[in-house]
This record gives sequence, structure tokens and C-alpha cells, in this order.
Amino acid sequence: MNNPSFDPDIRRVAHLLADAARAAILPHFRSAALGTENKLSQGYDPVTVADRAAERAMRDILAAERPDDAILGEEFGAQAGTSGLTWVLDPIDGTRGFVSGTPTWGVLIAVSNGTGPFFGIIDQPYIGERFEGSPEGALLTHARGQNPLRTRKTAELSQAVLFTTFPEVGSEAEGKGFHAVAGHTQLTRYGMDCYAYALLAAGQVDLVIEAGLQAYDIQAPIALVEAAGGVVTDWQGGRAHEGGRAIAAANAVIHAQALAILKDY
Amino acid sequence: MNNPSFDPDIRRVAHLLADAARAAILPHFRSAALGTENKLSQGYDPVTVADRAAERAMRDILAAERPDDAILGEEFGAQAGTSGLTWVLDPIDGTRGFVSGTPTWGVLIAVSNGTGPFFGIIDQPYIGERFEGSPEGALLTHARGQNPLRTRKTAELSQAVLFTTFPEVGSEAEGKGFHAVAGHTQLTRYGMDCYAYALLAAGQVDLVIEAGLQAYDIQAPIALVEAAGGVVTDWQGGRAHEGGRAIAAANAVIHAQALAILKDY
Repeated sequence: MNNPSFDPDIRRVAHLLADAARAAILPHFRSAALGTENKLSQGYDPVTVADRAAERAMRDILAAERPDDAILGEEFGAQAGTSGLTWVLDPIDGTRGFVSGTPTWGVLIAVSNGTGPFFGIIDQPYIGERFEGSPEGALLTHARGQNPLRTRKTAELSQAVLFTTFPEVGSEAEGKGFHAVAGHTQLTRYGMDCYAYALLAAGQVDLVIEAGLQAYDIQAPIALVEAAGGVVTDWQGGRAHEGGRAIAAANAVIHAQALAILKDY
Repeated sequence: MNNPSFDPDIRRVAHLLADAARAAILPHFRSAALGTENKLSQGYDPVTVADRAAERAMRDILAAERPDDAILGEEFGAQAGTSGLTWVLDPIDGTRGFVSGTPTWGVLIAVSNGTGPFFGIIDQPYIGERFEGSPEGALLTHARGQNPLRTRKTAELSQAVLFTTFPEVGSEAEGKGFHAVAGHTQLTRYGMDCYAYALLAAGQVDLVIEAGLQAYDIQAPIALVEAAGGVVTDWQGGRAHEGGRAIAAANAVIHAQALAILKDY
């Protein structure tokens, strides 16, 4: 777990960001309940308020702690830097899950250099789980302690568990590609948002396939899954960190089997 | 919150059952991870072990505390009683969620009399949430305290959030019926297992529609949702507590709108 090339200050600051995002978001989660009318009709949109407050809080910390790094955020766009490092932030990934009360959304924090993300956090504030991947490995921190994370060794697509967020997946062709793979798996499940990648890193599922992603949706999952032993690419086997279509797999064997189907779509 | 017709001993014992089920199940949740091969190939099936251990623990408590009541359990079947009350138990509802590591499964505990369930618990041990409905009302107990639960007042299907567990729903006709309703809603989501009913009771979503249910799948959700102000029926508007097809709605208005579509399937 020692890698001299990994600057521990990145981890320190990343946890400050995740803590700040939790504090900004949690008061708004499930807040418009208890018999109120439709949330929007009250003029209060909890997910937008929480999203913006969390990204603002994270940017304030970066301004103080890492002023030379660039930032790419879902809410407030890109800010240039001079260090060669970019913090890639999605304060609430899975806003439809958030507005439905499901604890499947997450705070995504990645750090990338010229070649892609090498550090990533998926934080689920309501459950209180923080999944983290770095060159030193992957771990889960929760109220009861810490666990190392390691992807599964499933070697046959017919034994694999596949996740995506919604059955349409993306375009019609993307939906067909996903379901072509799904037809070969043991189990296909929906609705987990970014939490599906956390489950993949934790050795619970074998594949996550999505489309229509932004860079800030996928960079933290890439760093986490790779640190836990998995493989993440686009549907042609190339880099996925700019967004678009992504396949995350527990290992290279299952990745190759799914990609052999996906690449035709 | 005082209803002289509700025996507080039922609540006391129900919480003993839920506590025992938590203790029996949690050691097995996500246990076959960390790079092991396929769970079944190791000869250890965590969900079956946990399911049976939890129901055994709950039956042992009932034998000591409520020997005159009947029991209907998912794992060990029916046991007759003399009191007119039946404890209806599903130790792990959502086994596919359980084996995928998603915190969407739950321990279901209901108590019914000749007319149906009047007390119900949906317990999510990993998150640490216990949703409870009785003639005295509905509440959520979690690590940070307790909240009363109340369903939403959404009055238009076009503003409703609809949940079910998987997109096929059931038979081909049942799938068509579900998607006919889904086409009129604001948002349709999947993958929450029994947790969807908890979210409905908590005022987060408006509709849950399922098919192919057993009595032990739906009795606790019925008692919880009704206690929070919602309506649960079959797809023809009749009682749902024997299982089959169910629609749970946040209120009578949204229920009528969805039922007008569903009843043709």
C-alpha cells in the first residue's frame, strides 16, 4: 500500500471535499417529504440547491488548499490550473435517484493528470460509505471501519451480474448493445446510479455498462474500479475518461467477453 | 398516536424479531466478496444461509413470546395458531438485490387478523433503517432518531414517480399494464425491491406496481403504506394481501388514475 509516486496531500484534500459535500447535501436529501405538494411547485428544488452548494463548498476548499490545480465541475464548469492536475467533480451523480429518495446517488471526486484519472472517490453520504481508489489500492470507509476492496474473479459471462441505471441505457443502438450483453448474463439489475461502480469495486457485481456519460460521471468510477482490480473502457476497448459509452468489468476476462458483444453496436 | 385497539405487545415483539433478523443476516451480507470465485461454486450460498437463520431466529422468539399466534413464513411455511393473529415473515425480501450487494432488500414482518395486515415493518439492516406502520401511524427509526412518515399528495399522474423492481414486471400482460402506466408518469425507476414501498411511505415516491407477489411479500408493505396515508390494492381495486398483482399509491387520487389504466390488463 505504499507508492512513492502518489502524493498523500491529494487524499487529504479529497476527503476534505467529500466531507464538505456531505455536509452541504444531506440536509436537502428527502427534505421535501412529509406530505408536501410536488417539490417543484413549492419553488424549492432540493437537488439543485444541494448540487450547487456542494460544488461551491468543494471549490472553496480547492481554492485554499490546491490553488494551482485545474477544476472541472458539473455545476460550474472548467477552471484552468498550472500544476497539470485536474479535480473532476460531480457533487450529486444520480439526481433522479436523489429526488426519489434512493441512497444510490453519490458525490464523485476524481483527480486526473494528462493520461486520465488516478484517484477517485464515490461517496454515499446517507448510508455513510466512502469508496476510494488510488495507486495505493481501493478501500471502503464506513461507520464500522475500513475494508479493502477487490473486484471478483468471475470468468464466465453466464455467471456475471450486470448493472446499469435504466433499461433504455441511451440511444436505440446503445440499448440494443446493452441488452445483447444482458442476454448472456446470470442477472441484470437497474437503478443503482454511480453506486453500481462502487459495488463492482467491492466485489459484488461483475459488469456496469452505461452510455451518454460526461467526463465527470465516469472519472471517479474509473479510478476506483481500476484500483480494485477492474477494467474500464469505452465500448470499443479504448479510454473512457472523456465520457460517452463505458463498460466497467471486474476483470480482463469478463471484460473481453462483454466487449466482444458490445463492440458491434 | 393512541389507539386503544392496538396491543403494544405486538410492537414490542415485532422489534425483537427485527433485531434478531438483523443479527442473523448482516454477517452474511456482502460476505462472499474480496476476489472470491462465484459464490455458489464455493458451496456457500450467503442468502440462503441468512434467510433460514433469520426466520429460525424469529420463529424461536414467537414460540416464546406469542405461542398462540399463527405464523406464515417464506422459508418454513405455515404454523397454525389459536389467537386469530398471524405473523407473516419474509426474512430477506429481495434476494437478487442481496446477492448483488445493494441495500434494497429488507426484512418483512407483518401481523394480520381475519381482515388483513394491520401492522408491518420493513427493516433495512445494512443502512440501519426500520420503517414501521401500525394503527397508531407510521414512522422511521434510524441511527439519528425517529421521523413520522407520511405519503405525498401528488394529484396528477404526470407528476408521479413510479417504481417497480425489474422492467419485465411479470407476465407479458403484466409488463404491458405496468408500462402503460409508466408512460403517463414523470419518472419510472427500477431495482429497489421492498425498499420502494418504504420510500412510498416516506413521501419520496408516488406509486409502486408489482406482480407475481406472495402474501409474505406484500403484507408488511400494505400495513406500512396504509399507516402512512397510502392505498394498496390489486390491479382491479380489490384486496392485495394474498399476493399476486399489487399497486401501492401515495393517495386515493393517484391510485384511481393509475388503476383506471391498470384494470384493463
